[in-house]
Amino acid sequence: MNEALARAESLIRTIPDYPEPGILFRDITPLLADGAALTAVIDAMIEPFAGTFDVVAGVEARGFLLAGAVAMRADVGLVPIRKAGKLPRPAASVDYALEYGTATIEAHDDIADGTRVLLVDDVLATGGTLVAAHELVGALGGVVVGTAVLMELEALGGRAAVGDVCSVFTA
Amino acid sequence: MNEALARAESLIRTIPDYPEPGILFRDITPLLADGAALTAVIDAMIEPFAGTFDVVAGVEARGFLLAGAVAMRADVGLVPIRKAGKLPRPAASVDYALEYGTATIEAHDDIADGTRVLLVDDVLATGGTLVAAHELVGALGGVVVGTAVLMELEALGGRAAVGDVCSVFTA
Repeated sequence: MNEALARAESLIRTIPDYPEPGILFRDITPLLADGAALTAVIDAMIEPFAGTFDVVAGVEARGFLLAGAVAMRADVGLVPIRKAGKLPRPAASVDYALEYGTATIEAHDDIADGTRVLLVDDVLATGGTLVAAHELVGALGGVVVGTAVLMELEALGGRAAVGDVCSVFTA
Repeated sequence: MNEALARAESLIRTIPDYPEPGILFRDITPLLADGAALTAVIDAMIEPFAGTFDVVAGVEARGFLLAGAVAMRADVGLVPIRKAGKLPRPAASVDYALEYGTATIEAHDDIADGTRVLLVDDVLATGGTLVAAHELVGALGGVVVGTAVLMELEALGGRAAVGDVCSVFTA
């Protein structure tokens, strides 16, 4: 890891017992607020996939922050994947299980058939949302070339579910 | 308006009767999905404020897409302004009125005193959220240098409420 990335990692704040007792929450907002750290992590997210994707898709809401930055840096377009009920004309919709209950994500038909899509999110935990996002991109006619996340929580095993993931940091 | 911006504007889709009968919804997702159009509008959002801000603040959720892109393009950090209950350690919180009821926005203490902040959002409507965001940045010790939006809905009068706004497109 280079010096810029090591410094960026040092800006991630660990908050104990959030959102529940026993959980260590990784707060990336101090990293995002630092321009040099933000650039370092965005470049590291793009690097393994450079030149292989036509568009970036990010999942609401925190994924939007990084997806916007990755799209701009890589000079490609940006497809928001939204929670149910936010889009006027969803072209595809995928339900997935949460710890308690289910959730639904949707997207507009802004991906032409065969478009190569890089999925972007902040944290890979169990991978449930990213697996659903993968399915959603496929339903729209896109091809997921991989998933770039800022941080991977290894103990939660999301990598096995999601497949081709590159994470900048692990915890 | 230059050719790239005119083309970007042509990608904004108008959807009648959404979210309610009589409302013309401006859907920017086809514009975002186009890399050249995205770059053109992000550059146009930055241009009036170039060199005057240290950090970009964006409001959840659609504001995150553009704030991430603006921060990356301008080479500065990014501060997410979130809806209530999403942040582990909110340092400031502002309530504001909606058409029906109220909403609350919060942010972490990632803005040093005197930091110059550019507010970014997708659409300026009545300006309620952006006025609250302005107040929130002030409560954190930051100084708002202006607000950049992709589209301004002029009939709703948000400009009078928000103050120093630059919009790329008007409708």
